[in-house]
Amino acid sequence: MEFTAKAVAEFLKGEVVGDPEIKVNKVSKIEEGTEGSLCFLSNPKYEEYLYTSEASIIIINKDFTPAKKTNCTLIRVEDSYQAIAALLQLQESVKPVKIGKHPQSWMEESSEAGDELYLGAFAYVGEDCKLGNKVKIYPQVFVGDNVEIGDNTVIFPGAKIYPGCKIGKDCIIHAGVIIGSDGFGFAPDAENDYKKIPQTGNVILEDRVEVGSNTTIDRATMGSTLIKKGVKLDNLIQVGHNVTIGENTVMAAQTAIAGSVKIGRDCMFGGQVGIAGHIEIADKVKMAAKSGVAKDIKKKGAVLMGGPAFDFMDYQKSYVYFKNLPRLADRITRLEKSMNNQKKE
Amino acid sequence: MEFTAKAVAEFLKGEVVGDPEIKVNKVSKIEEGTEGSLCFLSNPKYEEYLYTSEASIIIINKDFTPAKKTNCTLIRVEDSYQAIAALLQLQESVKPVKIGKHPQSWMEESSEAGDELYLGAFAYVGEDCKLGNKVKIYPQVFVGDNVEIGDNTVIFPGAKIYPGCKIGKDCIIHAGVIIGSDGFGFAPDAENDYKKIPQTGNVILEDRVEVGSNTTIDRATMGSTLIKKGVKLDNLIQVGHNVTIGENTVMAAQTAIAGSVKIGRDCMFGGQVGIAGHIEIADKVKMAAKSGVAKDIKKKGAVLMGGPAFDFMDYQKSYVYFKNLPRLADRITRLEKSMNNQKKE
Amino acid sequence: MEFTAKAVAEFLKGEVVGDPEIKVNKVSKIEEGTEGSLCFLSNPKYEEYLYTSEASIIIINKDFTPAKKTNCTLIRVEDSYQAIAALLQLQESVKPVKIGKHPQSWMEESSEAGDELYLGAFAYVGEDCKLGNKVKIYPQVFVGDNVEIGDNTVIFPGAKIYPGCKIGKDCIIHAGVIIGSDGFGFAPDAENDYKKIPQTGNVILEDRVEVGSNTTIDRATMGSTLIKKGVKLDNLIQVGHNVTIGENTVMAAQTAIAGSVKIGRDCMFGGQVGIAGHIEIADKVKMAAKSGVAKDIKKKGAVLMGGPAFDFMDYQKSYVYFKNLPRLADRITRLEKSMNNQKKE
Repeated sequence: MEFTAKAVAEFLKGEVVGDPEIKVNKVSKIEEGTEGSLCFLSNPKYEEYLYTSEASIIIINKDFTPAKKTNCTLIRVEDSYQAIAALLQLQESVKPVKIGKHPQSWMEESSEAGDELYLGAFAYVGEDCKLGNKVKIYPQVFVGDNVEIGDNTVIFPGAKIYPGCKIGKDCIIHAGVIIGSDGFGFAPDAENDYKKIPQTGNVILEDRVEVGSNTTIDRATMGSTLIKKGVKLDNLIQVGHNVTIGENTVMAAQTAIAGSVKIGRDCMFGGQVGIAGHIEIADKVKMAAKSGVAKDIKKKGAVLMGGPAFDFMDYQKSYVYFKNLPRLADRITRLEKSMNNQKKE
Repeated sequence: MEFTAKAVAEFLKGEVVGDPEIKVNKVSKIEEGTEGSLCFLSNPKYEEYLYTSEASIIIINKDFTPAKKTNCTLIRVEDSYQAIAALLQLQESVKPVKIGKHPQSWMEESSEAGDELYLGAFAYVGEDCKLGNKVKIYPQVFVGDNVEIGDNTVIFPGAKIYPGCKIGKDCIIHAGVIIGSDGFGFAPDAENDYKKIPQTGNVILEDRVEVGSNTTIDRATMGSTLIKKGVKLDNLIQVGHNVTIGENTVMAAQTAIAGSVKIGRDCMFGGQVGIAGHIEIADKVKMAAKSGVAKDIKKKGAVLMGGPAFDFMDYQKSYVYFKNLPRLADRITRLEKSMNNQKKE
Repeated sequence: MEFTAKAVAEFLKGEVVGDPEIKVNKVSKIEEGTEGSLCFLSNPKYEEYLYTSEASIIIINKDFTPAKKTNCTLIRVEDSYQAIAALLQLQESVKPVKIGKHPQSWMEESSEAGDELYLGAFAYVGEDCKLGNKVKIYPQVFVGDNVEIGDNTVIFPGAKIYPGCKIGKDCIIHAGVIIGSDGFGFAPDAENDYKKIPQTGNVILEDRVEVGSNTTIDRATMGSTLIKKGVKLDNLIQVGHNVTIGENTVMAAQTAIAGSVKIGRDCMFGGQVGIAGHIEIADKVKMAAKSGVAKDIKKKGAVLMGGPAFDFMDYQKSYVYFKNLPRLADRITRLEKSMNNQKKE
């Protein structure tokens, strides 16, 4: 498929600067753009490529003014990142869609599915499940008994949904994700022999949740582990039993949330963050990568770093002094010497 | 099913305070208790709910005295956490149990299993395996050649047991766990091209070990990686080749143990802990979440934090000063100024 | 099989010190050597065992001089670690090899494979794939449409390769690995509702790459996530979209590389390292375990530690002062008192 700059601009409600008839046939990263490429500039770190790229068209933000001459046709839009998302979505939407039950899949008779189900090879759906319309279940997925899955939800190869869990509409569950495994609950006896606390609850994912590969979300001891609307979890994240994560909160890879934590909405966590059990975290809190939290964060919109985490800017300042600790110590030693000399005098 | 407070108290060898005839039909978290709920109070953090809960019965510790009036019937027991564990175990024990071989499973003829085997859909058992009585193997599990699995052990969907590994009795292996993959062993040659060191050993799990979802335990280069009786590992943990973990040691999610580490018994590790290779750690050592260890820990019962880890209380103290480093530095600067002024005088 | 010291020394081009006719029938760790064992000493930490071991033969480095008398026959070689690798490879090479298509596997007709394919039970190969000679695909592996896999590559149970990815020759992909899942790319709208950016690229693994269990490598948004020749990744590692990892770079478990990072060749990362997005890291950089990097590392061969990471030795020094911060603060307080006293005088 080929599109002119004019056609692309119309689709994006943008404005062409340059040749409206120039044609593109692929979407590329700005640093890899060649003739026929449609690229975009969003992260200022890549601005230099704007002036050297051989791409045919580059999409930029309306409020951005190039500092130098460019060889490409530009399309100015409100938000270049949103624009490229829309274009890639268009590209995806014309791809052929998997549909039908593979002869080597298995769905128990007591379960029901809506229209246009895809059930891949060696996928298994247990008893009494309810699958919505256009649900896509890739090969080797396990769906336990009594699971509910909403319309349009896609479950990629090998993901495992334990019995009794509920997954909303328009969710994306990536390969290897485990939803509903037992929480880590034990009661040590007098000999420090750990008795298992049965985990009798479930996991609920509301609508539009995306869960990255090999992430694990434990079922509640009682009640539900709850992942609210629009939450996005990256790969290899651990979510403990009885956790609640608020709407549109996003977490980067390898973050771990211990049991019974309550996280607000619109939070952003970097990678490898750790939250101790039974903590509450306010809305819109941002945590730098690798931060650790052991106490409630009550301040809405707090930006934190460190282990244990405190204010991001304060951490940065303290860390500069940490790097200089040998020099600080020397200054103390010199002061002590001066002081001693004075005393002697 | 419905039970009276009297019946519950008899089962738990506890004492009713309130109405012995009040009935419950479900187990709930104390903060979600409603009429008909049986709840428990163990973590003092949740004490406030004791006075506001609409639960019918709340189980508390014998040595706990409520500070205010409660509306619920109380049952006083030795250990409320153990009591709820016992009740949930009772609830679990009446659930129907999976049994039989699914028509779409595969077990090589040279392998043998005891009574009441469950072999789920698309599960595979290789050559010359020995499975005990009441072993449960969920869908899409892989059991390699020459694997042994003891009585009552449960292997949840999609777990993979490499050839030659041995798993004890009463173990629980959660979904996505990998047992026996190759250790990370390479010998770089003169061109820094890494030659693989074949990993020819295995993994042994003794009895009553529980392994959380997507945790990985590597086989030994030679000999065995050994996880002793009663060890509990949370999700997404990495256990390197030739590691030994002592009895009843517990580790929270995303902890990583490098190769050839020897860990004592009754240790407790928080989440995201890291232990460098070839380290020995004494019995009963406790490690705060995110701690890193690069040297042997010889002191039994040591409590550690930090990266590298040292005494927990000392870390806490140092960290308070870390947060205040800008102020400490200011004090040094002021001292220097005073000193200079004195010198001038 | 039994070998004499003489035969082993010939194979390794080494020199026997002791009885050339003594026989061994197994390879053991030096601390577990018994009669008939062939052991090796590489890590000096284990030197003591050299003098107490009951092994029949121990392989040591040519340039190593035992400090005490040993009871074993020694074989002196250029590099004992390489030597044991060679011996274990020999041992592995005589093991029987899996071959053939399991009756319960599935490969779409449009896909083709070379000679000596192994396709295990419940493994699935999609449309239009190209598999080389001697490719081994273990049970429950998923190979998406349009995937290419080079000669001799082994894919262990349950690994998932998303559509369009390319895997080179002589690669080893361990159980539970996910290659080609969507990168974590979203564009928040005005209501902080995250719109998905379709991830339309792929993952390319060049030759001789090894990927540890449950590691995840995301596909590029556009273009390719690229893992170059000879890279070795341990277990539970996260590699974000559009990342490039240079030749022969090795990473220990649970390291996370955010999106669009470019890592040089011959780097070595410890476990649980984290690299922020859009960073460049020079060749031969070494990172201590748990380090975090948020800025480009331009110095070839830099050795780093900390969060954020800086020079390894400097970090060690600063950390010693960190541990002593309470004492440093006391010294400041004493100076202040002395100063005040002087002023009063």
